Amino acid sequence: MGRVARADGRSDEALRDVRITRGYQDWPAGSVLVEFGRTRVLCAASVQEGVPRWRTGSGLGWVTAEYAMLPSATNTRGPRESVKGKIGGRTHEISRLVGRSLRSCIDMSALGENTITLDCDVIQADGGTRTAAITGAYVALADSVTWLRAAKRLADPKPLSCAVSAVSVGVVDGKVRLDLPYEEDSRAEVDMNVVATDHGTFVEVQGTGEGATFPRSTLDKMLDMALAGSTRLCELQAEVLAEPYPGKLPGSAA
Amino acid sequence: MGRVARADGRSDEALRDVRITRGYQDWPAGSVLVEFGRTRVLCAASVQEGVPRWRTGSGLGWVTAEYAMLPSATNTRGPRESVKGKIGGRTHEISRLVGRSLRSCIDMSALGENTITLDCDVIQADGGTRTAAITGAYVALADSVTWLRAAKRLADPKPLSCAVSAVSVGVVDGKVRLDLPYEEDSRAEVDMNVVATDHGTFVEVQGTGEGATFPRSTLDKMLDMALAGSTRLCELQAEVLAEPYPGKLPGSAA
Amino acid sequence: MGRVARADGRSDEALRDVRITRGYQDWPAGSVLVEFGRTRVLCAASVQEGVPRWRTGSGLGWVTAEYAMLPSATNTRGPRESVKGKIGGRTHEISRLVGRSLRSCIDMSALGENTITLDCDVIQADGGTRTAAITGAYVALADSVTWLRAAKRLADPKPLSCAVSAVSVGVVDGKVRLDLPYEEDSRAEVDMNVVATDHGTFVEVQGTGEGATFPRSTLDKMLDMALAGSTRLCELQAEVLAEPYPGKLPGSAA
Amino acid sequence: MGRVARADGRSDEALRDVRITRGYQDWPAGSVLVEFGRTRVLCAASVQEGVPRWRTGSGLGWVTAEYAMLPSATNTRGPRESVKGKIGGRTHEISRLVGRSLRSCIDMSALGENTITLDCDVIQADGGTRTAAITGAYVALADSVTWLRAAKRLADPKPLSCAVSAVSVGVVDGKVRLDLPYEEDSRAEVDMNVVATDHGTFVEVQGTGEGATFPRSTLDKMLDMALAGSTRLCELQAEVLAEPYPGKLPGSAA
Amino acid sequence: MGRVARADGRSDEALRDVRITRGYQDWPAGSVLVEFGRTRVLCAASVQEGVPRWRTGSGLGWVTAEYAMLPSATNTRGPRESVKGKIGGRTHEISRLVGRSLRSCIDMSALGENTITLDCDVIQADGGTRTAAITGAYVALADSVTWLRAAKRLADPKPLSCAVSAVSVGVVDGKVRLDLPYEEDSRAEVDMNVVATDHGTFVEVQGTGEGATFPRSTLDKMLDMALAGSTRLCELQAEVLAEPYPGKLPGSAA
Amino acid sequence: MGRVARADGRSDEALRDVRITRGYQDWPAGSVLVEFGRTRVLCAASVQEGVPRWRTGSGLGWVTAEYAMLPSATNTRGPRESVKGKIGGRTHEISRLVGRSLRSCIDMSALGENTITLDCDVIQADGGTRTAAITGAYVALADSVTWLRAAKRLADPKPLSCAVSAVSVGVVDGKVRLDLPYEEDSRAEVDMNVVATDHGTFVEVQGTGEGATFPRSTLDKMLDMALAGSTRLCELQAEVLAEPYPGKLPGSAA
Repeated sequence: MGRVARADGRSDEALRDVRITRGYQDWPAGSVLVEFGRTRVLCAASVQEGVPRWRTGSGLGWVTAEYAMLPSATNTRGPRESVKGKIGGRTHEISRLVGRSLRSCIDMSALGENTITLDCDVIQADGGTRTAAITGAYVALADSVTWLRAAKRLADPKPLSCAVSAVSVGVVDGKVRLDLPYEEDSRAEVDMNVVATDHGTFVEVQGTGEGATFPRSTLDKMLDMALAGSTRLCELQAEVLAEPYPGKLPGSAA
Repeated sequence: MGRVARADGRSDEALRDVRITRGYQDWPAGSVLVEFGRTRVLCAASVQEGVPRWRTGSGLGWVTAEYAMLPSATNTRGPRESVKGKIGGRTHEISRLVGRSLRSCIDMSALGENTITLDCDVIQADGGTRTAAITGAYVALADSVTWLRAAKRLADPKPLSCAVSAVSVGVVDGKVRLDLPYEEDSRAEVDMNVVATDHGTFVEVQGTGEGATFPRSTLDKMLDMALAGSTRLCELQAEVLAEPYPGKLPGSAA
Repeated sequence: MGRVARADGRSDEALRDVRITRGYQDWPAGSVLVEFGRTRVLCAASVQEGVPRWRTGSGLGWVTAEYAMLPSATNTRGPRESVKGKIGGRTHEISRLVGRSLRSCIDMSALGENTITLDCDVIQADGGTRTAAITGAYVALADSVTWLRAAKRLADPKPLSCAVSAVSVGVVDGKVRLDLPYEEDSRAEVDMNVVATDHGTFVEVQGTGEGATFPRSTLDKMLDMALAGSTRLCELQAEVLAEPYPGKLPGSAA
Repeated sequence: MGRVARADGRSDEALRDVRITRGYQDWPAGSVLVEFGRTRVLCAASVQEGVPRWRTGSGLGWVTAEYAMLPSATNTRGPRESVKGKIGGRTHEISRLVGRSLRSCIDMSALGENTITLDCDVIQADGGTRTAAITGAYVALADSVTWLRAAKRLADPKPLSCAVSAVSVGVVDGKVRLDLPYEEDSRAEVDMNVVATDHGTFVEVQGTGEGATFPRSTLDKMLDMALAGSTRLCELQAEVLAEPYPGKLPGSAA
Repeated sequence: MGRVARADGRSDEALRDVRITRGYQDWPAGSVLVEFGRTRVLCAASVQEGVPRWRTGSGLGWVTAEYAMLPSATNTRGPRESVKGKIGGRTHEISRLVGRSLRSCIDMSALGENTITLDCDVIQADGGTRTAAITGAYVALADSVTWLRAAKRLADPKPLSCAVSAVSVGVVDGKVRLDLPYEEDSRAEVDMNVVATDHGTFVEVQGTGEGATFPRSTLDKMLDMALAGSTRLCELQAEVLAEPYPGKLPGSAA
Repeated sequence: MGRVARADGRSDEALRDVRITRGYQDWPAGSVLVEFGRTRVLCAASVQEGVPRWRTGSGLGWVTAEYAMLPSATNTRGPRESVKGKIGGRTHEISRLVGRSLRSCIDMSALGENTITLDCDVIQADGGTRTAAITGAYVALADSVTWLRAAKRLADPKPLSCAVSAVSVGVVDGKVRLDLPYEEDSRAEVDMNVVATDHGTFVEVQGTGEGATFPRSTLDKMLDMALAGSTRLCELQAEVLAEPYPGKLPGSAA
């Protein structure tokens, strides 16, 4: 009985090949290249002493994120936002989503008055850049926390309360499918991004009908599939983080 | 048995008092003042011949939205974005949400090459400004469509396929509650905005854990309550739209 | 002998219907909706402790104003200045005029180191928006001074030295006319805005020939008519301010 | 009997030394250095074929102005507006005033579809820069009209209907005084700029009480003095324009 | 006999390890990762039909470049220029240098009315980012020309007249040294960047005394060393370009 | 045998007529009008107590420069950068070059915590504006140092270690020529700017092939000619600086 397979041969509920490379750059405390199929995002976690002025003296840390796309990352070259002189609405929105998502897994009083900036720069885009960014940024964040711990700059040694990953899910050709590449994403009737923890709880749910509206039953099916995908991503994060910190930690022997 | 009532005496699943006033301004084809309790948003639908360049010649119309807040709308005066010289991320994000939501209920080929701009200006903010804006913008959009029909400028006389309304829902003090005022919103553990149609389907679902994550069971309960709230709002929209157009239509006798 | 009446039946020296509504918004210390015919401007006076840096430690207060127009306020929708990323010359000019005018009636040392920001947002424009703004802003300023007095934050209890109002006057169809609506303003040969006090003195006089120049005799006639109009507006301000403060004052019983 | 003389020994109703130098730069069609005492403004009139888009095809010309101050022109160095990335309110306001004033003396249909841009750059500021700018810009405009006539690009050979000049007047030390230098301007109680024609009519009148308000009698005295000053400036303009065009005109022998 | 060795053990006239990886991204016609030691720059050449408006109809092509640095590329995280809303002077300057350098090796009439944009994004910075960018951009440009040739979109099949590479040279610790890493660059007394061709001619020479000035003899020595370095870089470019195009060319069998 | 003379009759190695006028403006501590033929640049040196924040407390002074062009300075009127809202790449680049060049001749610890801002505003452009700007800025800088010395605000009375001047040199019509006017500059095959000291050493060398590349022998010839030109310019600087300070110094008798 005829079922329309996905272009890359995956089943509807399968993730693309996911690769997470730690220690991609030398300077930031955490630097991770994350790949969801052809989508590649460089996630760097930079540590800075102190917090923004409105938070100074609170004893609390801060985590913020900036998402951007290289002009050469997309099928057709995109204009550079620094040249246009302003950040577009989409960039703003994703930067805010990434920051909010990562703040949900860290205890700010344990972090102490340190700021961690998560730069998520898309090297190559093929759908799901924001979910890859969140998934990779968690690993970079974890590495930067390890670095701060070694530098004895944390107020409490265990600020991370859970792991966070994200995945897209959508309705394409009338089917609910996981982890959409650009070719599916661009014609999806419903498009949803789900951020979840390794405890199986939600951090953020954003679903949009693109020209179509969707019933509760479809929403339920999408949520099921996304949670399963996120669980798998959190396993992959745990696997790579089981390896030692990919560089020299403060205070370690040369 | 002791239950913590809401500050305004409402039950958890009740909307605030909702008032929708059509014909608030004289010039735009649709102009609606919508009030959700103390939250007041002025929604204007302005009609312009032609569409943006990238759509010209397609035979399709366009609907776009701009959301903004008066500096005096908030408890503490906010800076004016025109003076700062750029639009903040939150403003961008809500403008995009309003535009997307309203585009979901209109058939662009029936609209023909006309552009409708929905300006949602918050006169007074007390939580739920984006959901009030969407709910009011639908009524302004409907009035502007009536105006275009009278002006014989529609490609097809019935471009609207459904009604759209929106409501917030959240977890406050451990309880799921509908239509949060600022006092509840600012301390909600989970915050969700749901845009839905009068057919009971979803247009957009955006839920965020604020410092907390949330299980599937809570999400389900929030979705139930939001759908019921949206259904009630669509009834109110239908009631006010049953009245005649609040001004002079093109082609009507003086 | 045939005299060309004005479109709204007024005599040349008459004001339009003027309405001043105090307490229009809940949060600012002063909030006034002022209407000159169809022109409607929301004037809010927000109070902030302290003064700009260049004035800190002087013991003097500060009053500043920002004027803006809603995109939907005009006959044809105007672009939003926050979206354009800069404020136009006209907006700048009127903001400066409103600020300067209101500073002329307040004793800065009596105000003490408080800042009052006057936001004048045009809800609907039909000529004379800047003069309506000044006239309404004075009432909002007076309410915010009452609020500061109740809060015991003034250095001296009577900082206001006079009342200020403004009105336009112009030459249309060869006749000098008061308080021009858009239809007259757009074809006036000479256009003048006069800001005056309830003592009958001038604060600001701005007259411009639009394509025409004008003799001293015409200027004199315009000044006479404007002073009479301003006197009438100051009477209306005094009438509405004779009513109690439209909200709860600091320190008053609940 | 004790009269407080002005710092430079002038009588209250006297102008400062005024010098007008034509042909100051080689490229623009008109280039004039105007000096009111120590105030020096370079006024250039550049000619461009065609008019702004909104005027194209109307057969009408356009005159516009841009006023700016060199950072080194003021007693204390001012920041450069190009570096700040935006034009201040004062610059905007004066640019608009200069443009409006010069448009009052030229017949746009006689000019034909040409644009003349008047750049008024203040080389040294000592009060009255805007009035010097208008006075010098008229001479530059006249030269650029001569150039256009020689190039046979005017629709009608006599587009200028009158001459335009401007002067400041104010109340200083309780006295009405003409053409205020910075030292007087900065402590004037009332400050007025008057733009007038060589026919003795007004183009623009802008008077402002600085911390003080002023009665009708003072306003009358200021207007008298300003008209007399403007008449004298128009005589000086006529004298310098009686000399031949200070360069090579199109079509003239080498 | 005491000679102070360089921190990485190189001789004064040696390049760092140079690696050039073609086909780094999938979408652009040319995409090259170039590494000079720890400095890593991603150079993408994107092809677009047509040329900027001012060149349209000339039959000539256009090559332009944009240089930027990832915030995470530097030792201490740098601010994002898109967030600041403007491009800094250094970025501007290098973008212009890269564009100018690459335009020197291509015949614009042979290119035909195509635009090639060279995006040089620094992934990791350790001195010499602009010279690495130019060296890598040439290889990306060559690949994009191969792509255009396969697509039969060139006016003439051989638009490249020479190869271009660049290298830094400076005076550090009193010695002339080639290809400075950040540690040397930041304390160099003289700093020079030389762009040269594989024919041994110069494209651009930029030398700056940093707090010091330098005699002709030092300049001569720097020029000698830089030319030798550039010759070696052009050989490396030729080696990697001897390999086939790293992707699918238009018109080639699947 | 026929040699093509330069349009202005100069020999290839001759400078244009150079005029340096000190004391051009009244307010800045140094103010110099420099002319290279028709190129005229106003160079002002403004003194400010204190240094930028990043340098405060170091005991070191600071010298910075801003270069700009009047819209009316060029053959065809250029747009005003303050109106465009951003500074172009060329302006940025030249401002940085001027600042760097002048910093090379001053000892920052002798200057003490003072800031000198060099504003170089081009009044008329005919090629070589940046080299004229540097040459004139040195004289303005020297005057501002004299002023600071008289005001007893220097840490050491002799902060200037050498004089600095600049000149352009290029290949035009196959010949190496000095000090190019616009007509030659715009068609030069190679264009070089050389900044040098009165000791015959280099401060900055910037050479660019415009569409052509150039051999070492041409570079050598250009460097020879530029050094000779710079030597002559330094002599002219010394001549004008031999005259007394053109104004009233602090502390001098009235």
